[in-house]
Amino acid sequence: MREVPANILESISIDCVIFGFDGQGLKILLIRRKYEPSEGAWALPGGFIKRDENLDDAAKRILKDLTGAHDIYMEQVHAFGAVNRYPLRRVITISYYALVKPEHFSLIAGADADRVDWFSVKEMPELPFDHHSILEYALQKLRYKVRSQPVGFELLPKKFSLTELQSLYEAILGEELDKRNFRKKILKMKLLVDLKEKQQSVAHRAATLYQFDSKNYAIMQEKGVVFDL
Amino acid sequence: MREVPANILESISIDCVIFGFDGQGLKILLIRRKYEPSEGAWALPGGFIKRDENLDDAAKRILKDLTGAHDIYMEQVHAFGAVNRYPLRRVITISYYALVKPEHFSLIAGADADRVDWFSVKEMPELPFDHHSILEYALQKLRYKVRSQPVGFELLPKKFSLTELQSLYEAILGEELDKRNFRKKILKMKLLVDLKEKQQSVAHRAATLYQFDSKNYAIMQEKGVVFDL
Repeated sequence: MREVPANILESISIDCVIFGFDGQGLKILLIRRKYEPSEGAWALPGGFIKRDENLDDAAKRILKDLTGAHDIYMEQVHAFGAVNRYPLRRVITISYYALVKPEHFSLIAGADADRVDWFSVKEMPELPFDHHSILEYALQKLRYKVRSQPVGFELLPKKFSLTELQSLYEAILGEELDKRNFRKKILKMKLLVDLKEKQQSVAHRAATLYQFDSKNYAIMQEKGVVFDL
Repeated sequence: MREVPANILESISIDCVIFGFDGQGLKILLIRRKYEPSEGAWALPGGFIKRDENLDDAAKRILKDLTGAHDIYMEQVHAFGAVNRYPLRRVITISYYALVKPEHFSLIAGADADRVDWFSVKEMPELPFDHHSILEYALQKLRYKVRSQPVGFELLPKKFSLTELQSLYEAILGEELDKRNFRKKILKMKLLVDLKEKQQSVAHRAATLYQFDSKNYAIMQEKGVVFDL
């Protein structure tokens, strides 16, 4: 436990919920806390806001200091302010989230973290404070988002099979989707370009490859509300 | 300008964006500020959070103290934290919003407000601080919401015509909608029950009355993502 420096706002913090998709499952970026409270616990990367720092800048700085990850576009999610959520004093925290490719980032623990790592959201350590609720809230937002507009496609290889696309959706939604139904719906959206090309050197039957129709993708992202998976 | 009491968190406030629909246009609830900074200006109802108060409770208490309006379900929108947004010191504000029927509430100015009133969003006084951005952000959220799921229907009379429903949508979206297109889309959603009944004692040609199919409405609200007006 350390003293609160004078240049920070002692009653407002930021917590970052960084989801990763590595082609397999949904991951979450956690740090191990170097100081009390909850020293030694794996937790969301979080910290206090400086007096001369805007919120988005604070989120970026905190994430970078603790994990080494930078150049991540994070979106603000929600403020959490239950009276006793933090043990030392009243602290309201504002959460941010992002969905990234884990292999794009070199992780370096720093500041109040002595370790940093990706965990499967299915096999996570117990999180301190209200971090579980903060994570759950961001996950609900992400799920709502992938159901209502095309997101996360940046996480796939440039050419991908419908099975790979379905894996991304299943990882985020945390449920299996009916293959036939998924294909029907996704193809109907006119978001995909059939490359008339097959996968190379795969053990199973080679699947057809697709890429995104980036023009339609941009239109649909702007419009919102297009999916209903 | 008054001293900051010891029982409040001096660097976190809440601002309430209360929209009203009275059958005509979209309104916004404003208070006139009794104290500096910006004494005498019409502004969003806002105030500081008490140390022993959760965020949602603070929002309700602040709204009630300033305007008399209570029993309004408000949803958290966004935290605003530009370094210089508040002139006296660093304050981060968390916005809440709601959409109500103005005639349901008796307004009584209190606490830091000496007046309270509804204003048309089209003819508003200039707002202090970053209140214009806070309002605009909430309005975008409301617009996104009415485009993606059935909301705001509680603001109509129990039996209503399609013209009344269209007025609600046009007021919120701030644009005229094509009548034929609107009717086609709205009827396709199977949200409305044709009451086989006409309007009574109206000057113009009596229109058919509808009511909501509350079962389908509940299902669609839960599911989200159904509209595309």
